[in-house]
Amino acid sequence: MTVPALDLSADVVTLTRQLVDIESVSRDEQAIADAVEAALRALPHLEVVRRGHTVVARTALGRASRVVVAGHLDTVPVNDNMPSRLDEAAGILHGLGTCDMKGGDAVILRLAATVTEPVHDVTYVLYEAEEIDSAYNGLRLLGESDPELLAADFAILMEPSNAVVEAGCQGTLRVEVRTRGERAHSARSWRGVNAIHGAAEVLARLNAYEARRPVIDGLEYHEGLNAVGISGGVAGNVIPDECVVTVNFRFAPDRSEAEALAFVEDFFDGFETTLTDSASGALPGLDRPAARAFIDAVGGEVNPKFGWTDVARFTTLGVPAVNYGPGDPMLAHKQDEHVETAQIERCEQQLRAWLQGEAAPTDREEENP
Amino acid sequence: MTVPALDLSADVVTLTRQLVDIESVSRDEQAIADAVEAALRALPHLEVVRRGHTVVARTALGRASRVVVAGHLDTVPVNDNMPSRLDEAAGILHGLGTCDMKGGDAVILRLAATVTEPVHDVTYVLYEAEEIDSAYNGLRLLGESDPELLAADFAILMEPSNAVVEAGCQGTLRVEVRTRGERAHSARSWRGVNAIHGAAEVLARLNAYEARRPVIDGLEYHEGLNAVGISGGVAGNVIPDECVVTVNFRFAPDRSEAEALAFVEDFFDGFETTLTDSASGALPGLDRPAARAFIDAVGGEVNPKFGWTDVARFTTLGVPAVNYGPGDPMLAHKQDEHVETAQIERCEQQLRAWLQGEAAPTDREEENP
Repeated sequence: MTVPALDLSADVVTLTRQLVDIESVSRDEQAIADAVEAALRALPHLEVVRRGHTVVARTALGRASRVVVAGHLDTVPVNDNMPSRLDEAAGILHGLGTCDMKGGDAVILRLAATVTEPVHDVTYVLYEAEEIDSAYNGLRLLGESDPELLAADFAILMEPSNAVVEAGCQGTLRVEVRTRGERAHSARSWRGVNAIHGAAEVLARLNAYEARRPVIDGLEYHEGLNAVGISGGVAGNVIPDECVVTVNFRFAPDRSEAEALAFVEDFFDGFETTLTDSASGALPGLDRPAARAFIDAVGGEVNPKFGWTDVARFTTLGVPAVNYGPGDPMLAHKQDEHVETAQIERCEQQLRAWLQGEAAPTDREEENP
Repeated sequence: MTVPALDLSADVVTLTRQLVDIESVSRDEQAIADAVEAALRALPHLEVVRRGHTVVARTALGRASRVVVAGHLDTVPVNDNMPSRLDEAAGILHGLGTCDMKGGDAVILRLAATVTEPVHDVTYVLYEAEEIDSAYNGLRLLGESDPELLAADFAILMEPSNAVVEAGCQGTLRVEVRTRGERAHSARSWRGVNAIHGAAEVLARLNAYEARRPVIDGLEYHEGLNAVGISGGVAGNVIPDECVVTVNFRFAPDRSEAEALAFVEDFFDGFETTLTDSASGALPGLDRPAARAFIDAVGGEVNPKFGWTDVARFTTLGVPAVNYGPGDPMLAHKQDEHVETAQIERCEQQLRAWLQGEAAPTDREEENP
């Protein structure tokens, strides 16, 4: 296989296009990982390690602190949105992965190539298989095989966040709440017990739920408890003997997974609940000096992250982490995925300034009116 | 194709076996209809008409009243339960169709062959395709093509009823009750409207429903309003924008279909309801002299019919009708379908006595202790 060459001396938008034009749907990341590895190995100031299709490049300057800057290389499936297309007049780059998240990957590669004397040691991580089952997730696998490669005082995950810092993330778990009954022919319904009718109380409790909104490190989180699925029924003439309500609990990062599950089980007390999946949240960790300095460097604006992202994997390793990257997260996974090129450029400038210990180059309003 | 010969001079259990051993799954009734037609055409006191695989045989004696005795020739699919097997010691005949309803068909053929001077004119109807979509139902098709062939003062449908008269039948209709919401990512659930939560009120109303139990012609009916299905949900991380509760209303025969639908629409006032199917009930009609005489002849016991059967088709033609036939309806469509041979014999004896204007031969306790 010919490895497409990446030109790390090109501007960040051109580099984004090069990355977008290497197809890299999850589980098909060899070509892009080969290209990234080759480009990074050409940089003498970095140590490069590869695991699967995950590539790690690190400085080893003996700084007092170390930060991780990470992004995933894979995309969701192609949907008639390859290759990239640049609308220069509008300042918009179109195509699969432009938003989620090859713009962020291009920023990482530009920083890796050009910031040779950062004030913190830096570990750049470009990983495989974020968009699919976590069994394949390159960041998870790296944390298990080589946790020392992820050791740091602070981590930035360059998932699209409109170039605004989103700190921490909420956890998520799903339970099935099951009601049971007894089948009967619906012409003689009084001989059975209707399990769907039994779910009325489950839904009534959900309607009565009041969301907790805790403030953590100055950020207001917002929990949510919702039915995301319901199913029941045997046939059009049968009283159903089972009904299952699938409930998703999004919980603030001051609760552990176990505490979140205990809350849900107590909430549905008297019903049969079965946990189907669970992922911990991530505390914002804004009290750490490295995090605080980063926030200041990029302009001070911080929002809580409601959705679950891989930042939670850093938390489980004891590393505070934030989301910060170019692109509107609402455009991720859309057929018309695109990104404002100015956001990619701003992310590069602000991260460079931070890594070089400079003041933020401009504020957002001036740069992108 | 060789037409299997039926011997109408054989006893009714032997004739039942002959019918069972001619496979006649719905839409494959040619062989059995040919056999039935040939046997009936050999009887000089009957006029025979065939439509598709439905066979009609009638006396034309100029009696003051006419009755219909009807049964369907088809069965549900074979399930390793062919051919018939007679357990003489236990008095049980095993096999597909023994209960639903070739025992009843054998009674019809025996009466057709042997009751040459009935006190009412009689129309015997042996029809196709009762077990499947009503588009194919031979009784329905006959009522449309030749309604005069079904004209009568009273009708007996020999569906299994444990040889006890079941009068009238309840109607049935199904509606979809739909709630709507607005999708959102479940991490930001407050931006959406949860349609499953909106169904809580639908289920609460069903739980508060109190069944009406009207007494009609001395029989107590029992209505029922039940969710028989529920579905909603887009994905495990999406606030669902639609939930559908499928509700089955079983209504007593003093309500028309339109009245039943109006009740349901009023019951779910404020929700979107869509009618998906509907079938009228059948009034017991026990005030008609022919019906009263029949009840008296078979011992006076009458139960209301809760389930829907083809008796309702007679009602739409203005003919009061009852279910009365050998076999336990709970065994219909079961792999181990069977019938007590004594029930087949009792049905034959009681119907013969009635058609010949005699007193009922025995009562049930003496005959089948």
